[in-house]
Order: sequence, then structure tokens, then C-alpha cells
Amino acid sequence: MSSTKSLRIGMIGFGPFAQFLAKTMIRQGHIVSATSRSDYTHLCTQLGVSFFRDTSAFLESGNDVILFSTSILSLSQVIKALPLECLKQPTLFVDVLSVKEYPRDLMLQVLPHDSDVLCTHPMFGPESGKDGWKDLPYMFDKVRIRNEAACSDFLHIFATEGCKMMEMSCQEHDEFSARSQFLTHTIGRVLAEMEVEPTPIDTKGFQKLVQVKESTSRDSFDLFSGLFVHNRFAKQQLRDLELALALIKLRLESRSEELEQS
Amino acid sequence: MSSTKSLRIGMIGFGPFAQFLAKTMIRQGHIVSATSRSDYTHLCTQLGVSFFRDTSAFLESGNDVILFSTSILSLSQVIKALPLECLKQPTLFVDVLSVKEYPRDLMLQVLPHDSDVLCTHPMFGPESGKDGWKDLPYMFDKVRIRNEAACSDFLHIFATEGCKMMEMSCQEHDEFSARSQFLTHTIGRVLAEMEVEPTPIDTKGFQKLVQVKESTSRDSFDLFSGLFVHNRFAKQQLRDLELALALIKLRLESRSEELEQS
Ligand SMILES: NC(=O)c1ccc[n+]([C@@H]2O[C@H](COP(=O)([O-])OP(=O)(O)OC[C@H]3O[C@@H](n4cnc5c(N)ncnc54)[C@H](OP(=O)(O)O)[C@@H]3O)[C@@H](O)[C@H]2O)c1
Ligand SMILES: NC(=O)c1ccc[n+]([C@@H]2O[C@H](COP(=O)([O-])OP(=O)(O)OC[C@H]3O[C@@H](n4cnc5c(N)ncnc54)[C@H](OP(=O)(O)O)[C@@H]3O)[C@@H](O)[C@H]2O)c1
Repeated sequence: MSSTKSLRIGMIGFGPFAQFLAKTMIRQGHIVSATSRSDYTHLCTQLGVSFFRDTSAFLESGNDVILFSTSILSLSQVIKALPLECLKQPTLFVDVLSVKEYPRDLMLQVLPHDSDVLCTHPMFGPESGKDGWKDLPYMFDKVRIRNEAACSDFLHIFATEGCKMMEMSCQEHDEFSARSQFLTHTIGRVLAEMEVEPTPIDTKGFQKLVQVKESTSRDSFDLFSGLFVHNRFAKQQLRDLELALALIKLRLESRSEELEQS
Repeated sequence: MSSTKSLRIGMIGFGPFAQFLAKTMIRQGHIVSATSRSDYTHLCTQLGVSFFRDTSAFLESGNDVILFSTSILSLSQVIKALPLECLKQPTLFVDVLSVKEYPRDLMLQVLPHDSDVLCTHPMFGPESGKDGWKDLPYMFDKVRIRNEAACSDFLHIFATEGCKMMEMSCQEHDEFSARSQFLTHTIGRVLAEMEVEPTPIDTKGFQKLVQVKESTSRDSFDLFSGLFVHNRFAKQQLRDLELALALIKLRLESRSEELEQS
């Protein structure tokens, strides 16, 4: 269980979340490289990550694991543009996108059949995971795994930090997270739209809402859109939210009218 | 400052919030009596509170402070039914309703002119204040105070527990709390309507929403209705909430369409 085998991990997409993951991976002794639309050469030098501007060179460099951390909305374009013929060996492909059926289908469709596919979603980010990952849920689905050892070595990165390891299907994930994460982001964005701010007489409940507003607004609008566009269960949640609000409003208004008439 | 003068405090309305306040007042050495629509004789005996079924006897019993803790919706009826001629002396009247302009106006209209009026709102309840009141905001407005000593003795109850003492006008309170407490209760009720429940892969943000749902659902629907019906700033907040949700939805849908067309 305590095999701390050093993995060569190549990241595709080096935005805020990939940077956050890379720090822990490097601390654990893994060798991290990255490629991304933008040039992160300077930042990567500071972090101890090899940055490749050229995706062919990146794929040729022989990674044990290739991890997709692009925005949900760009994955299709990014994955289809990869010169996959440059891969030298069967590789474990992993993604960390916040929706799961969508990258699963794309990866199965585009990646070489001799490569393994692991879908994952760390249920935390740079803010909620800033004091460590202990007890934070880590969802994964072993979609197509033949090299069990490589997969287990990769999962070990999260297990060893104390994550709550949650194996479930991509579909289950998307059902749960439409009702939890997507709903949370929607409410956070609504509160941001209302420009909700702390007052001198905040209740504890309101303080929690302000925190939700602040942490969800820190994520990109692309991330939020991705949660909606590429999770087939999200639309229904948005409808349910609207309906519930309309119902609560109706109840308040009819209570109000009753009182006026009495 | 540390005058721990024992006050005779008579409570009108002995629901969950009055019971919660009474415990701390008794612990501090004050003498608490109560009257309420329902019969609380048994509970009061356990708590060390004298319970009066008869409001005349209650008013005649010579309280230093009379505290209204009825529901917002029932205050008008309760205050107008009081046999105020039974009062033996000018008294400090205090209310703890979660809206402030409304009880202020009612108290100024109905209570004897030689009595003092202090409007207050402890910004916490049995749940959020269960581990003590330290640093929790206590809002007050000295609406008509001539007996400064009595008023200060009463405020001392909260100051001595470590509350953040916030003096402001009833109007300011209602403006702030429509944007904070009423909004929080509305979102909590909406989440309850949606039957939102913890999942195996909760994010920290979602856990906060579940807490908001649970704590606001514990309060009575009368309390929630009162926040809406008797705070003139609440309607606008409800409209703003609906509007913000509609806007976020529109933004998601147009992002979705853009992506389909590209
Ligand atoms: N943030 C979190 O808390 C969190 C938690 C769990 C999972 N995730 C998932 O992790 C992934 C990355 O999230 P993030 O927070 O870093 O922000 P994000 O906005 O979701 O994604 C940013 C990344 O996507 C790349 N990208 C965006 N548009 C692109 C395009 N048109 N072509 C090529 N690349 C494009 C960016 O590349 P450049 O930077 O090079 O421009 C960057 O690497 C997402 O799939 C997200 O759902 C995030
Ligand atoms: N709960 C909190 O966290 C909190 C915090 C700060 C301020 N407050 C304020 O404190 C007050 C009391 O709140 P609460 O939580 O105890 O619950 P509530 O539902 O707002 O009020 C319950 C009280 O109102 C009385 N009441 C209700 N309808 C009545 C009627 N038609 N005629 C006479 N009395 C009636 C009840 O009397 P019986 O019990 O005798 O039936 C009970 O004493 C409210 O004004 C609320 O806004 C509450």
C-alpha cells in the first residue's frame, strides 16, 4: 500500500487547478511536465515542472500518466488536436473535469485503444483544499483499466493525502453533482449577481452564503458553464430551482394576502 | 459597567426563542416570568420561570422589563389585547422581533406614553447561539428611553455574554436584514422545497448550503412569513433574487447555444 513509486505525470492544461495539483504531486516526489494553450514556461520553472510548448515533444517524452486538466468546454478541441501517433507506449489517461460522462465518452472515442482510461473528480479546489486534502472526497471511475498497478499508483497520490476515495460510475457522479456542485455554483453566481455583501448584523447562515458566493465566483465562468452544458442532469436542477423559488414566493404572497384580508 | 443588577423580566410569548433567552437570563440571576397563548406552566416550573395564564395578573406583577417575543405576525393582536391599565409603573418595553420598523411603530402607537421603548434583534437563535453568544451581533435601537439606567441594565445581559453590540436605527436594520437574513431564509426554504440532501461527494460549498437549509427550516413558517410581510424592503430582495436567477439562466443558455453553433 505504501508504494511511493515516482510517476512521470504529464498535464494537458496548466490552469489554476492543474497548478494546484502539481504542487502536491511534486512534494510527493513525482516528476511533472505540462503543456497548455498559454505559455507557462516561467511559472513552471519556478514550480519544478518541465513545460512543453510543442505537444508532439510532450507526448514523445514518455509519461506514465497523461492528465487532462483543461476547461470542460475546451476538452473536445484539445483532445482532437493531439498528435497521438507520437505516443511511444500504452499510457494511463486521467481527467479531472468537474463533469464525468462527457470526458469519459470523448476519451473512449479519441484515445488509442491500448491506453487505459481513469475518470476522476477531486471534489475540492485551490480554496477548499488549501489546508490539505484530508477527508475531502475524491471520486473515480476505472473506465478502462488493464494496467492495475499504474492506476493504483496514481490513485495513491490522493489516498495518501487522506482523501475520502469514492469509486462510482460517471453517471452517478453527474447525477449527484448536478444536485450539489452545480446547484451551489448557481446559487453562488446568483448571489454575486445581486452583489450580496457582509452587513454589520450578519447571521451565521448569511455568512455561509457569502462564503459560497466568494468561493464559486473565484472559479472561471467557463467552469460554471461546463457544469451546465456537459452534465445532462443539470438542466432539470435549474428548472427545479426556478420552480421551488416560484413556489416559495407564491406561499409568501398568499400568506400576505390572507393577512391583509383578516 | 459590571453592575449585575437583578432585573424582573416578564416575557410575552414563550415560544422557542423566548425559552432560549430565558435560560441565559436566569443563569445571570434575573427573575423571569412569562405569559403566552399556550400554557407553558409545566415547562416554566422546570426552568424556574413564573408562568401567568392571566395577562392582568402578569402586568400587575411589577416587572422592570416587559419583553415581546411573540411571532411577528401575532404581535399586533397580542399587544392590542393587553389590559395595559393594569401596569403599576412606567416600564421598559423591549421586543426581539426579527423585523424592526413594524414593532417600533406598534409599540409607539399602543403602549403608555410614560413607558420606555427599546427595539432589539439578537442576530442568533437556539441553533447558532447554542455554544454561547460571544461575537454574535446584537442590534438595538433606543427608540424612546428616559430611564437610561434600566435600559443599560437590560443591554448588559447581552454585552456581558460577549455579543457584538450594534446600535442602529430600525430602518437600517430592516434594510440590512432584508438583504441578509430574509435572503438566507428564502434560499434555505427553496433548498428545503427541492429536498436537497447530502451526497457522498459533497463539496465544502454544498455542505454550507445544506447547513443553511437545515437551520432555516427549523424556524417556523410564521417567522419566515413575518420577515417578508412586515419588512418593507423584503419584496424588492425577492424580486432581485428572481431577476438574478433569470439572468444567470439566460447566460448559461446563450453560452450553450453559442457552443452548439460553433
Ligand atoms: N478549480 C477547481 O476547484 C476544480 C476542482 C476540480 C476539478 N476542476 C476541473 O479542472 C479543470 C481545470 O479547471 P481550472 O480551475 O484550472 O479552470 P478552467 O477555466 O475550468 O480551465 C482552465 C484550463 O483550460 C484551458 N483552456 C481553456 N480554454 C481553452 C481553449 N479554448 N483551448 C485550450 N485550452 C483551453 C486553460 O489553458 P490556458 O491556461 O493555457 O489558457 C487552462 O489550462 C476543469 O475541467 C475543472 O472542471 C477544477
Ligand atoms: N428563533 C430565532 O432564532 C429568533 C431569533 C431572533 C429573533 N426571533 C424572534 O423572536 C420571536 C419568537 O420567535 P420563535 O422562534 O419563538 O417563533 P415564532 O413562531 O416566530 O413565534 C412563536 C411565539 O409566537 C406566539 N404566537 C404565535 N401566534 C400567535 C397568536 N396568534 N396569538 C398569540 N401568540 C402567538 C407563540 O405563542 P405560543 O407558543 O404560546 O403558542 C410563541 O410564543 C419572533 O418574533 C422572531 O422573529 C427569533
